[in-house]
Amino acid sequence: MSTPAVLGLDVGGSSVKSLLALADSSLSSPPEILSRARTITPLADPVDGLVEIAQSVPQQHPVSRVVVSIPGIVDETRGVVVRSANIPALDGCPLAERLGARLGVPVSVINDGHAAAVAEAAWGAGAGSDDSFVLALGTGIAGAHVVDGEVVPGAHGSAGELGHITIDPAGAVCSCGRHGCLETIIGAPALSAAWNTAGGSGGPETLLPAYADGDPRAVPVVQRAASALAEALLTLCALVDPGRIVIGGGIAREPHDLVLLAAQYARQRATFHHVPPIVPATLGEWAGANGAVRIGMQHERLATAAR
Amino acid sequence: MSTPAVLGLDVGGSSVKSLLALADSSLSSPPEILSRARTITPLADPVDGLVEIAQSVPQQHPVSRVVVSIPGIVDETRGVVVRSANIPALDGCPLAERLGARLGVPVSVINDGHAAAVAEAAWGAGAGSDDSFVLALGTGIAGAHVVDGEVVPGAHGSAGELGHITIDPAGAVCSCGRHGCLETIIGAPALSAAWNTAGGSGGPETLLPAYADGDPRAVPVVQRAASALAEALLTLCALVDPGRIVIGGGIAREPHDLVLLAAQYARQRATFHHVPPIVPATLGEWAGANGAVRIGMQHERLATAAR
Repeated sequence: MSTPAVLGLDVGGSSVKSLLALADSSLSSPPEILSRARTITPLADPVDGLVEIAQSVPQQHPVSRVVVSIPGIVDETRGVVVRSANIPALDGCPLAERLGARLGVPVSVINDGHAAAVAEAAWGAGAGSDDSFVLALGTGIAGAHVVDGEVVPGAHGSAGELGHITIDPAGAVCSCGRHGCLETIIGAPALSAAWNTAGGSGGPETLLPAYADGDPRAVPVVQRAASALAEALLTLCALVDPGRIVIGGGIAREPHDLVLLAAQYARQRATFHHVPPIVPATLGEWAGANGAVRIGMQHERLATAAR
Repeated sequence: MSTPAVLGLDVGGSSVKSLLALADSSLSSPPEILSRARTITPLADPVDGLVEIAQSVPQQHPVSRVVVSIPGIVDETRGVVVRSANIPALDGCPLAERLGARLGVPVSVINDGHAAAVAEAAWGAGAGSDDSFVLALGTGIAGAHVVDGEVVPGAHGSAGELGHITIDPAGAVCSCGRHGCLETIIGAPALSAAWNTAGGSGGPETLLPAYADGDPRAVPVVQRAASALAEALLTLCALVDPGRIVIGGGIAREPHDLVLLAAQYARQRATFHHVPPIVPATLGEWAGANGAVRIGMQHERLATAAR
């Protein structure tokens, strides 16, 4: 019998990325990828579409387990998509059960931020540490503390919400309904608004190069954002005390100026805090699919051990 | 051979509390206490004094393990008192090694906040939940997240510092060197100063009864403190997502008005947050000694399993 493989599907708003790797690959370094594909997201009929994507994977190794990464609120214990960020047809869907019944193998469903965090912690910028807090800076801000390869979920599965630390009690109203959360200063829409008010045009994709060029309109905008991020990171160090901080997402992209400046501010302002290495993420847009594969490999080991 | 017992010593600035219990007592409820004593803290010669205290315990059961709870910074892995809050003669002392050599049994040394948190989580107000964040409000503010009976230490042993969450970025200078930490608003000295400025006299021990009596000078002082605590608790819920929050220490004492008001504010202001039950601690001043005993029982089980 051929060695079984695990399939990771990272379901984004526009594309589904899939990765296939042998279930018994080492957990300590990125596995050899047997198959890699990118497909248009089946928005209208997501369950049928995901079945088709899973079945289209080359079958030289039998797929023994599928892990699906979904943006939004996921009940990972029950495998239910509570609320999807981009695919309304999945809201409330018991996706693990439906896909599992169709594919005939165990299926897990996880939050995409958790998946990406697991991969960054183990195979990306967190490699070599068994304790990383992984932060994604984009439209929203998502974080996850990964210890020994697993996300620390919190009692209700909602730990790691660094984007909703209050930075400025008198600040703008946040998507969460409170005032002055980190996200109201450094989320992509907030950063774009500040950049446009300062005379720039476009969003982070023009702001960050302008900062790198020393554009005097961009400098204070990036400094304020980095300062807010530094404050949130100091709160993180005081409360969670992670062994490494990994920062990814569009706003953290190369040349990583915002991350590096925030790290510098955090070190300057720390008093009793243990500020660990603060490093840019390295896996880019395939982090979620890698994390789905790794979680599949972990689950497969647990299932084998239980047999 | 008689069943072995574990000895917990809670070393405070003025007294040492000791508790003795059978090593194989149940972990799920407070054990029967074989011996309970309180002795003056041997400030000048603490190692000799602790040896004497340990040896003065009734010996109908052989003591197989000693756990010492110490206020201050403790390297729990190595059993070293890095910096004691009250007993300068212990600073830098490899206490586990010294006491172990003198007593002929394994000795562990732990931070007193950790010890109290373990006891409150398992046998006090956290009983019934396997995930509690335990907070002590006093001169300083110490917190510890206890999951499945053990403190979540963080990568450098310094997680849980809720007292140093920034509440008011423009606020007073904190003992830690930063501005507007929770401790600068709700630490006992800050609370006393605010109460005296408002026309009261004394500290929390007169402020809280005055608030309970509806004293119009006390009401805004307690409201501001409860409001600051509520903000810190919402940050805690966003980042750590505990299953229960237990609040003890002098400022949280009966009739618990400050804790109850902070819990009310936190619930009113929560948006996406999962605010768990917020309850007053129940073990009082013997929490640390109870925690030392429980940790001794846990260590004894691990040692037995490893044999």
